[in-house]
Amino acid sequence: MNPSTSALLTDLYELTMAQVYLEQQMDQPAVFELFVRRLPPHRNFLVVAGLEQVLDYLSGLRVSQEELAWLEQSERFSSGLLHYLEALRFTGDIEAIPEGTIVFPHEPILRVVAPLPQAQLVESRVMNLLNFQTMVASKAARSVLVAAGKPLIDFGLRRAHGAEAALLAARASYLAGFAGTATVLAGMHYGIPLYGTMAHSFVQAHQDETLAFEHFATIQPDNVILLIDTYNTEAAAEKVVALAQRLHARGITLKGVRLDSGDLAVHARNVRQILDGGGLSRVKILASGNLDEYRLRDLVRTGTPIDSFAVGTAMTTSSDAPSLDCAYKLQEYAGRPCRKRSEGKATWPGRKQVYRSYTDGGHLDHDIITTDDDQQSGQPLLHPVMREGRRLAASPSLVEVRRHTALQLGRLPESLRILELSPAYDVRISEALQGLAQAVDRVSTSKGVM
Amino acid sequence: MNPSTSALLTDLYELTMAQVYLEQQMDQPAVFELFVRRLPPHRNFLVVAGLEQVLDYLSGLRVSQEELAWLEQSERFSSGLLHYLEALRFTGDIEAIPEGTIVFPHEPILRVVAPLPQAQLVESRVMNLLNFQTMVASKAARSVLVAAGKPLIDFGLRRAHGAEAALLAARASYLAGFAGTATVLAGMHYGIPLYGTMAHSFVQAHQDETLAFEHFATIQPDNVILLIDTYNTEAAAEKVVALAQRLHARGITLKGVRLDSGDLAVHARNVRQILDGGGLSRVKILASGNLDEYRLRDLVRTGTPIDSFAVGTAMTTSSDAPSLDCAYKLQEYAGRPCRKRSEGKATWPGRKQVYRSYTDGGHLDHDIITTDDDQQSGQPLLHPVMREGRRLAASPSLVEVRRHTALQLGRLPESLRILELSPAYDVRISEALQGLAQAVDRVSTSKGVM
Repeated sequence: MNPSTSALLTDLYELTMAQVYLEQQMDQPAVFELFVRRLPPHRNFLVVAGLEQVLDYLSGLRVSQEELAWLEQSERFSSGLLHYLEALRFTGDIEAIPEGTIVFPHEPILRVVAPLPQAQLVESRVMNLLNFQTMVASKAARSVLVAAGKPLIDFGLRRAHGAEAALLAARASYLAGFAGTATVLAGMHYGIPLYGTMAHSFVQAHQDETLAFEHFATIQPDNVILLIDTYNTEAAAEKVVALAQRLHARGITLKGVRLDSGDLAVHARNVRQILDGGGLSRVKILASGNLDEYRLRDLVRTGTPIDSFAVGTAMTTSSDAPSLDCAYKLQEYAGRPCRKRSEGKATWPGRKQVYRSYTDGGHLDHDIITTDDDQQSGQPLLHPVMREGRRLAASPSLVEVRRHTALQLGRLPESLRILELSPAYDVRISEALQGLAQAVDRVSTSKGVM
Repeated sequence: MNPSTSALLTDLYELTMAQVYLEQQMDQPAVFELFVRRLPPHRNFLVVAGLEQVLDYLSGLRVSQEELAWLEQSERFSSGLLHYLEALRFTGDIEAIPEGTIVFPHEPILRVVAPLPQAQLVESRVMNLLNFQTMVASKAARSVLVAAGKPLIDFGLRRAHGAEAALLAARASYLAGFAGTATVLAGMHYGIPLYGTMAHSFVQAHQDETLAFEHFATIQPDNVILLIDTYNTEAAAEKVVALAQRLHARGITLKGVRLDSGDLAVHARNVRQILDGGGLSRVKILASGNLDEYRLRDLVRTGTPIDSFAVGTAMTTSSDAPSLDCAYKLQEYAGRPCRKRSEGKATWPGRKQVYRSYTDGGHLDHDIITTDDDQQSGQPLLHPVMREGRRLAASPSLVEVRRHTALQLGRLPESLRILELSPAYDVRISEALQGLAQAVDRVSTSKGVM
């Protein structure tokens, strides 16, 4: 199942507006930018993710014959719009901040420059894709920061919001530094390393726990991780010790055990002691069960002998902040910069660029948001990725994006690496941009738009 | 984009376990039940949803040739498993509580009886589908209960977790009593009524707000809802009054205006006054912008003159509870009832049925969970829906399910209808079921499974 590229995966108003634009010949270049208005309550930064799927979507944007037929029988739209949709291809330009980059509120993550009807129509899905993966990557990065290098695995499929959410959460968390996922189709589609153990039902389906362990070990001798909490964790650990000797005689070496319930810190210490006492000091302990970055941090800080963690629901759903306050706003139409001034939702007008400056130690120091034609010191974050509907270059591989993310996380100042809320990172609005906003407001007022 | 029916949309361990089951000839009938362990912090009940997609998934369960080729080159699985997957069809039986029914923790929503490898393999996706839609329908129902009959519309696509989440949230919220959705593809796939207005960018793309309104009104004269908060809400309402006269002369009647920012209660009163003063008492007010059931309740209770509401992110993501603590557990294998006894996660064994009793006034009084072969007074909630992989009957239409939900919500006792947490509904465990659990524990202990 690949993410949808149907142009009808959109809000109804996008089609209605497109019809008006077409009939009014309002097809001049429009500039939309996507940004996040404010950070969720528990975040100090965001990690951009989802650009690759946006480019796939724009490259493949189509309305199928079946969809056209349905639109036609709905009698909702003009034949002009239907003909337009039949021939629809995305022909615009895209600038974007690369996936894996750290960003902050008001910084444009993506800029779309395209004929107004096109740029408008893609709003809903572009937001849908960037909102979700950026949200998940930002959440997952927090776990990566506190895990102190211990491998993290995505176990979130069952409580992800549907199939696409599961696949894209596997991608976004891998990009953010997770070691892999349990979701098989994500392994196939994105080349993400796959991990898995066994379920409680596997143990229950056997009349005897040891027999369940033995069957499992024999079938996949290279990857034996036994789930030991179905009945009694410590008792099962003792069984594992006894079994390991028999398996060793058959040339099978246990890789690990998994804990999934109860007080993980207590069980991990008990189990570690039992395993070590039984000569199984090389057998690792994997923990799962309602883990999030706070529980991870506590388990790691207190030196709990857990070697790797599976993180599911909390990460996949970004449970403490299951959406971003993202916006996709018209900043310029037909060469005229514009801005929205709704209460609490005002935006900065025009095409923008973000310049980032670093400390001598290589950490993020401050960003400046300015107009696209202004030059500031620092590193520009937005880069061209699509021209006239065609990608400018092959996208970086997911592994490359993952490496970029790791470097980015390494450049976070200490104050932004902690789980608690820190003073906001220094993001400045340039004089050029402030001047443009004032100029836009003056024009609007004189024209009575207010 | 239809929900995926790929058997590889599963967790890796399901395939690993399936291989063990096949090699050990463990293909006897297994009974799994799906239930929710506990209600989220802010819920008094759940509304079942997602069964239709589960039946579609099971009916269409396949592994494609492309997927098989990928599995083979991964060298992770035996040729025995690959042959099994190539021929895989779901051949099991399903009992379920109908969509739209109110349920409570520990009540089995779905029972799967199938050869163990099949019943195991479908775990991840069955949970993924029922968790999401039940979560959304339960959240949406809370808005329906406080909206006092005012129409609610799903505006959640842009911050839904991917494409499938957007489509299925449109379905689940419509089922729960929403009037419709803005997501076009959900209208096409599920026949849900579509609603929409215009975006701020539409107003901004015009040099003049009144001109934007006029263009919009001319194109879709039957459905003119004008967004009036782009610059100044009250000023725009005045423009609407002036425009209405000109439009009236051309035979166009305005339907409504939409508010999307600021203090909605204040703006709604101001705008209502302006519209009424201008002879537009029939023009309705639609409100949107970070609405959830609490804000809805407050706006409705205080008599704010808002006629309908668009609800987006909070509903689509179930923002205060973005997952359910649902479980899919083996309750019987090869005729032997079993249960999991992990700390805090113990389950009731065997095939179960739920009987519901009502008060004389027709409201829910109490439920009894019992063994499938026990008979209790009240109405049984689980019904057969699939036998040997085939549906027993055509599913009820979405409109029929929506009607059933409305009846169900009408049968909620007053204490469960409020947004605040109430004392838990009375769900009893029958003596027969308690006896079975004890018997299962005795057998386990005597066999040393503990």
